Amino acid sequence: MFQTFQDKSSPEQGPPRLAQLRDLMRTRQIDATLIPRADAHQGEYVAPNDERLAWVTGFTGSAGFAAITASDAGVFIDGRYRTQVRAQVDTDHFTPVHWPETSLADWLRTHLPEGGRIAYNPMLHTAGELETLRTALPDSYQFTPGDDLIDTIWPHRFDAPQGAVTVQPLALTGESHADKCTRLAATLTAAGQSGAVITLPDSLCWLLNIRGADIPRNPVAQAFGMLHADARVTLFIDAAKLDDTVRAHLGDAVDIQPYEAFPDALRDMPAPLRVDKTTAPARVSELLSDAGIVFKWGQDPCILPKACKSSAEIAGSRAAHLRDAAAMCEFLTWFDAQAPGTLTEIDVVTRLEATRAAAGDLLDISFETIAGSGPNGALPHYRVSEASSRTLQSGDLLVLDSGGQYRDGTTDITRTLPIGPTGTDERAAFTRVLQGMIAISRLRWPAGLAGRDLDAIARYPLWLADQDYAHGTGHGVGAYLCVHEGPQRLSRASDVPFKPGMIISNEPGYYREGHFGIRIENLLVVTPATPLPTGDQTNKLCFETLNFVPIDRRLIDADRLSADETAWLNAYHDTCRDKIAPLLSPDAAAWLDRATASL
Amino acid sequence: MFQTFQDKSSPEQGPPRLAQLRDLMRTRQIDATLIPRADAHQGEYVAPNDERLAWVTGFTGSAGFAAITASDAGVFIDGRYRTQVRAQVDTDHFTPVHWPETSLADWLRTHLPEGGRIAYNPMLHTAGELETLRTALPDSYQFTPGDDLIDTIWPHRFDAPQGAVTVQPLALTGESHADKCTRLAATLTAAGQSGAVITLPDSLCWLLNIRGADIPRNPVAQAFGMLHADARVTLFIDAAKLDDTVRAHLGDAVDIQPYEAFPDALRDMPAPLRVDKTTAPARVSELLSDAGIVFKWGQDPCILPKACKSSAEIAGSRAAHLRDAAAMCEFLTWFDAQAPGTLTEIDVVTRLEATRAAAGDLLDISFETIAGSGPNGALPHYRVSEASSRTLQSGDLLVLDSGGQYRDGTTDITRTLPIGPTGTDERAAFTRVLQGMIAISRLRWPAGLAGRDLDAIARYPLWLADQDYAHGTGHGVGAYLCVHEGPQRLSRASDVPFKPGMIISNEPGYYREGHFGIRIENLLVVTPATPLPTGDQTNKLCFETLNFVPIDRRLIDADRLSADETAWLNAYHDTCRDKIAPLLSPDAAAWLDRATASL
Repeated sequence: MFQTFQDKSSPEQGPPRLAQLRDLMRTRQIDATLIPRADAHQGEYVAPNDERLAWVTGFTGSAGFAAITASDAGVFIDGRYRTQVRAQVDTDHFTPVHWPETSLADWLRTHLPEGGRIAYNPMLHTAGELETLRTALPDSYQFTPGDDLIDTIWPHRFDAPQGAVTVQPLALTGESHADKCTRLAATLTAAGQSGAVITLPDSLCWLLNIRGADIPRNPVAQAFGMLHADARVTLFIDAAKLDDTVRAHLGDAVDIQPYEAFPDALRDMPAPLRVDKTTAPARVSELLSDAGIVFKWGQDPCILPKACKSSAEIAGSRAAHLRDAAAMCEFLTWFDAQAPGTLTEIDVVTRLEATRAAAGDLLDISFETIAGSGPNGALPHYRVSEASSRTLQSGDLLVLDSGGQYRDGTTDITRTLPIGPTGTDERAAFTRVLQGMIAISRLRWPAGLAGRDLDAIARYPLWLADQDYAHGTGHGVGAYLCVHEGPQRLSRASDVPFKPGMIISNEPGYYREGHFGIRIENLLVVTPATPLPTGDQTNKLCFETLNFVPIDRRLIDADRLSADETAWLNAYHDTCRDKIAPLLSPDAAAWLDRATASL
Repeated sequence: MFQTFQDKSSPEQGPPRLAQLRDLMRTRQIDATLIPRADAHQGEYVAPNDERLAWVTGFTGSAGFAAITASDAGVFIDGRYRTQVRAQVDTDHFTPVHWPETSLADWLRTHLPEGGRIAYNPMLHTAGELETLRTALPDSYQFTPGDDLIDTIWPHRFDAPQGAVTVQPLALTGESHADKCTRLAATLTAAGQSGAVITLPDSLCWLLNIRGADIPRNPVAQAFGMLHADARVTLFIDAAKLDDTVRAHLGDAVDIQPYEAFPDALRDMPAPLRVDKTTAPARVSELLSDAGIVFKWGQDPCILPKACKSSAEIAGSRAAHLRDAAAMCEFLTWFDAQAPGTLTEIDVVTRLEATRAAAGDLLDISFETIAGSGPNGALPHYRVSEASSRTLQSGDLLVLDSGGQYRDGTTDITRTLPIGPTGTDERAAFTRVLQGMIAISRLRWPAGLAGRDLDAIARYPLWLADQDYAHGTGHGVGAYLCVHEGPQRLSRASDVPFKPGMIISNEPGYYREGHFGIRIENLLVVTPATPLPTGDQTNKLCFETLNFVPIDRRLIDADRLSADETAWLNAYHDTCRDKIAPLLSPDAAAWLDRATASL
């Protein structure tokens, strides 16, 4: 079982640790300390030895940070974590701060007199992050590196992860790492740069066609790297993670250096270097500036090529999603046979993971399964624990958002399921969410548009009913990499144009606080659109759907759908049956037949 | 008759004028001269004495500019004018340049050796425009003011316009100019600024509740101004335009200065001043910099308040649109009775203007009526001339886009009309355009969104058929001011959030080059949405429709509309009948009855 259900945090541990930190701050004449959730690689998940924020405050969410002064301790969390933070931190000693409504700079200005000394760990903050903070604060505030503040008071800190690296086969990547390095190095040469600093583990794993096992849910290896303009790579990684097969795969063009040698080794690299302000630790640019080494801000060169999947990666993702859909259908067959009042949310998560694992190819889940029933469904990022797990009752909706890590692809799917008969409000809202989800699925659009240009199309049916959802419509997804992968998003916050090969989720929802939640999610691949006879023959893009699991017909007000929407849904269900039935047990095949009957 | 149909340009006049300009450039050691279409007030229409671009090149479009070197003469035009420019300029001497595909900086780099001296008229370019140009060019290029280059060789230049100023009554503005000045001055005080330079005539007319008659189609007075932080105004205007009534209206708090005294008088204004980089002539900031007077870049303080119409202005616009709709219905009654093959485009424009004028309140048309039949309809900004005017034939579509200037409001409407039976492609495309237009009309959305967030909703039905239109979905409209008024747009290019009271056009279209055009346009007012019982009670906005003229039912494929779309159209047509029938002749009332029959 990958997922666990204990509450990871003990609020009572925070205050004594906070007191220790403040003692150390006094000794070092530090007036404020920043504690980010992030590690040096800025990922969404971090290894146990990097859980500094949780260790000091108790808060275990996937995003946030704390700012500690002699008298105040602010824990900054976004809208997803407003309930969780109150359960996890001792609010007599820590104050939850709504972020980004209150910025760190605003909070510091209020809680720290001018001239205060602020300690930060330059490996855990990006240069861009610190620049934003410094720009927003009066010049009188002083910044001082405080690399070891937390680590000094954390006595039994975990060891750094030691997961073995594996080779991702060429049949699944579609391009050798030598070819990738050559292709990307050419862009560095064209930009007049001698090399690019790469600090994102998924960038390095993609570039070198390797995967790791250092971080839960994300099959990446903790490493830093440098792509040189001659297509050679310097890889800073704990050598113990590499066996002979991996070393042979990497070959002579990849120079292995100790993980700890980064970033000081950058002093010996030829300039000018490219550094990504939004991902590289501030330490990198500080070191280069101090050493007088020329560098330019620029995007990690892997970001866009990684997002635009190769044909082999798309084929892999298709295969992984078929396998995953079969597991989902087996699970749903069992689930629909259970009586209301007999299952808990934990039962659901456990059974679903077991069903995925039974197929034999599951390497991990791609994130903690969200199984929110009734009011828990109204928390878009709900994570069930032993304390929170509800029994599914008649009338509930269950939001079930889950995915798997398979060698050939990363999957993600959400279905909303009725427990017994459900209310008219629920069905009306479900139908609107479905209309938005169908509108995105059917979309064709002129090449060049970004998430911001398209996001409203998913919301339009909800907006007409004065409803909406407080999250983006979709995120990028990796190829046996992170289930949240940039740079594209289907969101008002994204200016990144969609390109063929990008995978994006399509997951509108609706959440009525204290009552119920709804979300429907498929993954889509951006694809060049075949010109239509009615068309103007300009360059258009469209989506190919990857997930083939029925959308619950019991929640649809069929008479609210347009003829086109009904036709889409019936065709989708026909495809589900055609593709998935051959992969199923007889019981599940019969279930699928019923679940995909024409509307 | 306001509109004329002669071709305003004579291509053969360009080359001798170009030769004269080059002689003068040689004498003054100038290597390149910039000739903008704009006047000092950056409006879309300019007075005859400001038609420098047309006088030198022959090109009369509403946007564009020329760059002249000793050997090349580039005329920069956007997509709307690619055909027109070739008819209007002598292409042996002038080269049309596709802009913005080719920027001015790119063109200059190619056509002018480094170190070249570029002359510009600092009253005709904004500071922002010049900054963009200078930033994009190597430092070696020199810029030199050439205020009088064109005026020196233009022997019989027209006099500056002398239109009389009138008072816009309080009943129509809803707010006295004293109150507006006080309200806006408070924002200057809050920003620590002593005053704001205002160079847009419509800003000044709005602020002072006056209108002018200097510029065709736009009821504005050419003037410059300064709003002081104490709510006083300095108005630079030709005093001959102001009669005693206007002077009494303006009162003691408005100090009248000669038009020509601007901008030198800024030297005597207390600093720091606010200057709008995007609208003020570069001369303003050059002068302030030279004189060491502190100024800050900031938006013209009238822009946003002017865009958010008062209740009185909205009531006026409603009334103007009812009157205008009645004229449109009278026109359409006549139009539908004419046999195919009997009318020209000019006949249509003439009759429509006469019908609007017959109601007695028409002060001007709000822009040159677009009446494009058959292939002419595929030019979104087509202006009919004696040379281009087609006879309307059976099978044609006619795009008819027109509006009026009334004392109580500025109107704008587009309808597409069939001449005899029309083709299936035309009807299918018309239906899709209508679906997009209806989707925008029905829209409700969370406050805070901008044009970019919503524009795709109008295009979605066309996109599904691989179709699109190459213009924005809508523009702002003034209150008896300019028919194109910022800052809001319903367009991918706009980041300005919609606010209650803004008027915006909703005009999706479809254009098949060489064949036909389609556009349907109503004006809408942004309005706070009444919360719905299904809703989440957050702050939503919606649109109120201003135009009530039937949409031609003969062009609609009724079976392609959803039930909601059909319901919207039928309800809209019911409202047209209820509101407009009482204003019509018996014949037109009978026509309206037929035209609004339920689908």
